[in-house]
Amino acid sequence: MEELATEKEAEESHRQDSVSLLTFILLLTLTILTIWLFKHRRVRFLHETGLAMIYGLIVGVILRYGTPSTSGHDKPFSCSQEDRPFTTLLVNVSGKFFEYTLKGEISPGKIHNVEQNDMLRKVTFDPEVFFNILLPPIIFHAGYSLKKRHFFRNLGSILAYAFLGTAVSCFIIGNLMYGVVKLMKLVGQLSDKFYYTDCLLFGAIISATDPVTVLAIFNELHADVDLYALLFGESVLNDAVAIVLSSSIVAYQPTGENTHAFDAAAFFKSVGVFLGIFSGSFMMGAVTGVVTALVTKFTKLHCFPLLETALFFLMSWSTFLLAEACGFTGVVAVLFCGITQAHYTYNNLSVESRSRTKQLFEVLHFLAENFIFSYMGLALFTFQKHIFSPIFIIGAFVAIFLGRAAHIYPLSFLLNLGRRHKISWSFQHMMMFSGLRGAMAFALAIRDTATYSHQMMFSTTLLIVFFTVWIVGGGTTPMLSWLNIRVGVDPDQDPPPTNDSFQVLQGDGQDSARRNRTKQESAWLFRLWYSFDHNYLKPILTHSGPPLTTTLPSWCGLVARCLTSPQVYDNQEQLREEDSDFILNDGDLTVTYGDTTITANGSSGPHTATTNLDNRRTKSSSEEALERDLGAADHEVTSRGTRLVFPLEYNA
Amino acid sequence: MEELATEKEAEESHRQDSVSLLTFILLLTLTILTIWLFKHRRVRFLHETGLAMIYGLIVGVILRYGTPSTSGHDKPFSCSQEDRPFTTLLVNVSGKFFEYTLKGEISPGKIHNVEQNDMLRKVTFDPEVFFNILLPPIIFHAGYSLKKRHFFRNLGSILAYAFLGTAVSCFIIGNLMYGVVKLMKLVGQLSDKFYYTDCLLFGAIISATDPVTVLAIFNELHADVDLYALLFGESVLNDAVAIVLSSSIVAYQPTGENTHAFDAAAFFKSVGVFLGIFSGSFMMGAVTGVVTALVTKFTKLHCFPLLETALFFLMSWSTFLLAEACGFTGVVAVLFCGITQAHYTYNNLSVESRSRTKQLFEVLHFLAENFIFSYMGLALFTFQKHIFSPIFIIGAFVAIFLGRAAHIYPLSFLLNLGRRHKISWSFQHMMMFSGLRGAMAFALAIRDTATYSHQMMFSTTLLIVFFTVWIVGGGTTPMLSWLNIRVGVDPDQDPPPTNDSFQVLQGDGQDSARRNRTKQESAWLFRLWYSFDHNYLKPILTHSGPPLTTTLPSWCGLVARCLTSPQVYDNQEQLREEDSDFILNDGDLTVTYGDTTITANGSSGPHTATTNLDNRRTKSSSEEALERDLGAADHEVTSRGTRLVFPLEYNA
Repeated sequence: MEELATEKEAEESHRQDSVSLLTFILLLTLTILTIWLFKHRRVRFLHETGLAMIYGLIVGVILRYGTPSTSGHDKPFSCSQEDRPFTTLLVNVSGKFFEYTLKGEISPGKIHNVEQNDMLRKVTFDPEVFFNILLPPIIFHAGYSLKKRHFFRNLGSILAYAFLGTAVSCFIIGNLMYGVVKLMKLVGQLSDKFYYTDCLLFGAIISATDPVTVLAIFNELHADVDLYALLFGESVLNDAVAIVLSSSIVAYQPTGENTHAFDAAAFFKSVGVFLGIFSGSFMMGAVTGVVTALVTKFTKLHCFPLLETALFFLMSWSTFLLAEACGFTGVVAVLFCGITQAHYTYNNLSVESRSRTKQLFEVLHFLAENFIFSYMGLALFTFQKHIFSPIFIIGAFVAIFLGRAAHIYPLSFLLNLGRRHKISWSFQHMMMFSGLRGAMAFALAIRDTATYSHQMMFSTTLLIVFFTVWIVGGGTTPMLSWLNIRVGVDPDQDPPPTNDSFQVLQGDGQDSARRNRTKQESAWLFRLWYSFDHNYLKPILTHSGPPLTTTLPSWCGLVARCLTSPQVYDNQEQLREEDSDFILNDGDLTVTYGDTTITANGSSGPHTATTNLDNRRTKSSSEEALERDLGAADHEVTSRGTRLVFPLEYNA
Repeated sequence: MEELATEKEAEESHRQDSVSLLTFILLLTLTILTIWLFKHRRVRFLHETGLAMIYGLIVGVILRYGTPSTSGHDKPFSCSQEDRPFTTLLVNVSGKFFEYTLKGEISPGKIHNVEQNDMLRKVTFDPEVFFNILLPPIIFHAGYSLKKRHFFRNLGSILAYAFLGTAVSCFIIGNLMYGVVKLMKLVGQLSDKFYYTDCLLFGAIISATDPVTVLAIFNELHADVDLYALLFGESVLNDAVAIVLSSSIVAYQPTGENTHAFDAAAFFKSVGVFLGIFSGSFMMGAVTGVVTALVTKFTKLHCFPLLETALFFLMSWSTFLLAEACGFTGVVAVLFCGITQAHYTYNNLSVESRSRTKQLFEVLHFLAENFIFSYMGLALFTFQKHIFSPIFIIGAFVAIFLGRAAHIYPLSFLLNLGRRHKISWSFQHMMMFSGLRGAMAFALAIRDTATYSHQMMFSTTLLIVFFTVWIVGGGTTPMLSWLNIRVGVDPDQDPPPTNDSFQVLQGDGQDSARRNRTKQESAWLFRLWYSFDHNYLKPILTHSGPPLTTTLPSWCGLVARCLTSPQVYDNQEQLREEDSDFILNDGDLTVTYGDTTITANGSSGPHTATTNLDNRRTKSSSEEALERDLGAADHEVTSRGTRLVFPLEYNA
């Protein structure tokens, strides 16, 4: 009879699990249908994620106030233990042994809540679900769908925004919030401890921008591709930076009693943790990406798209697990794995697998993202440890505004010093405006809600996400037209004229000396990487690029012949055309807009000083012709199978 | 410090989780690569599932004997409870409260095993994972990829094999095993209780056939499509029957002390449970399928394939959860949902979504299936409660052989009485031979391994799966050639001549009276269903079929106009061609091979008595012509928008 009762309870628990999951699925279904209606009617003021949150809110209210708060069955049982808690517990129930696993700590005040409402408990997921199940496909998809060409063109600026900018934003927000906390202590609004490290952690959590709604509208309206690349690249990379930053802040633990004092040793330990986790995760991602590329290159797996897709999926997932198992951050590793897969493996896949993998991750990404946002809506009412402090919330809104401003404007100013094609004021305002917070900030905040300070941070983060997604998401279209940012750009046809382009000049002709004057420092590093990538990595890992037999020294002849795929000689041109979105063409790199290039083409006159919107249209057509020229020269070079040489030499 | 220790342990536990999942992913990756090698070299003696098991075995051995069996950290803690166990436990550890959840019972003898090997525990999944996560995509894919045409042609036989056959097999195996158990008791090999109901449960578990390896080879060699349909249809449906049978056997609990005696009330309760669960699950599956069809029909969701695919995925998943929440069987509901989706919703999807949904579920199915099989290999060594009893195992092998024989041969004999195109001896032998056991038997057996009898059943099931998958999988190709079963059949071009075809004659011309003489009883029922489906369900749920305005009575005019999609009039022919694999064409149903049809074509002579292989080739070409004829007539009929009439009338 006891067994039966246990079984019944397990069954009941399973049924409730099903109901709670069903709730989310119905929520998502409803979201999808409404989104369709919105897209159908061309409504743009509310993005699907914003909608998912609204539906989540409604269901949250119903669950909170509409379900009975009785749960007679599983009354908690208390028995005292001496030592620290075990992860496994064996309990003797009238002669039979039952195994229990540790779920987590419960603050003494909340004990009665635990038994209060079964349904609310059921819809509350383990926070690790977000990090281990929902975020990886989102982040991988982001890495896998980075538009390589525009991303690499703006790599320097993107890295600066993501690393420097996020760090700046984190410290400014952290310090401002510390001021707010001091103020709260003064007016007696703070009822528990709130350390400086907590404030910094909040800064790190809230510095992960997620302009999902803005980018969706950019995509739909075909807004300027370089602004898109800057925003998307920044948001993708700063997620990684924010995760690692928050881990290193948690690792900062001053020795001794005074946790407020600055401890140099702990600080350097934190910096070490940051560098270690970041580089380790990066390595993990790159390594599994490279392994996948090698496997898909040297087997003829592309005859069986199902096997290929499955392998691709498994290898990408294993990145995450490998990084977690080694103590690095899986989500960060997955991001770099996605980028590597797109850069190398994608070229080795069969045509069917390319669309399969893209579509598979697109669906996973879509479902995971909307799930997280609807969960956020739900959590506002069902999460049981909210602490809303008006001062803290207002302070946080001001702090993120100031933090974003201190991140975008000074950095853009500095970058513009080095960039030939400046980031215009309208772009800067748009980037300032697009500092939404989304899934990543939420996942970071919900990860640890054990203490008073973390609970307050979580509640505040939730409100910030709501506010930014709704207001900023709805205001994107008006903002775009107000700032006069051009839309309807074809990303493949029209290279934007107002942005930095790394002037990678591979040749050593007489033109290059003149061009080198305007070359930024970063371009030197990037050029080195690019030639290494093009001459060695691409040929080793994919079927494209120049044959290794020509790029490697002659004493490596045998190895070079083994590693070079026979298709290199035949397929090069075909591949080149197919992957235009994904492979960084030589043409893209060697194109330099403005006077220098045009000189080479013998028509510099009218293009040098044109910056206003109308002239751009006429300009683009002649630039297209230039690109075609360069493309042809490029093909000529590669089809001869020689080293990559600056194409303009041939034009001159 | 305590908190830190707990955190460290949680981290360590997470790391081990990652490692164990990583193990499985590497196993699957290895399987994929080897499979590619096998396919590349055209090796057919070992299927991917068999290979996955072998790799699983190897890793199992390594984990069992190669990892240290120490786990000092989580020593179990015992404290006595008075009553039955709670699902949630609150434990007071020096003033702090921790929450624990019930994991399951542990037999007293195994307490020390619990603490023995962490790694082994980590790779042991909760049995419900199989039922709730891995089986649904497998079963849904099976339903979604049923080749409708050949499936419906043989529906009567498939239903007979699946329902009657599985019941016969279950009872024969159950009774034989009861004899074996009695024998074991006599020779003193039985150390604990083993009831008659346990034997019947074993019969139900082991009656779920899974000819995955055979079907893979059939697919590759393009073996006879009707044999394929019979085997595949039987295996898909008998999974459902076996699940529901085992649930009803578990529900059979005689009142009073003597559990051996037959209890009529309990028996009828079991039958009621069977019927209730089966019909309930069927309804759930059908309803969500129909809802999805309606949603995809009446919204223009097909303009956004991503939304459409996501909706399709969510709705199909919700079937499972809905059925589980209502106390029915999710896996069975998912099966019928898959069939409904393929029959109706598939027609409403955009071309892109069709391939997306197919590919998505194909990948999920592939991964889940291979995961289960590699887990099986692993479980042989890592599962800690194995009981291998030689007598029971030998008895079980004999019993499944006899059970399969008693299932196939008598039933085929009975079916052949009614079928015009008999199931030949070679087909019967092949079906007898293809009685493999796979994922479903395993999932059913591992679900409950609490008692001695269930543990013995689980170990035996595992061995049966190994044996049948390896031996039968390897022997399929020789068996096919030995039995002279034709291969290289094009399923769309060549309708097989040696099988039953439901002679659904919709017209009332003078030919039909003659044809009705040969009509089976089941065809009457099926005809009724078919005309209902074609005239009402198809037009309501999809964009195909005759307009409702012509099939519904005139007083429903308004409703009919609302429900009929405007595309019906235009798109009919186009849709018809696209879905030839999925939609049951009228042409398929009305084609009757042999004398009667050929008469209508005026060339009955040479085709009437041709049954040997060589003549079939010549026959097929004239049959093709006939099908084209019928097809044309069919189009003529439908394009006029009238009721479906037997096309031969127009030919005559």
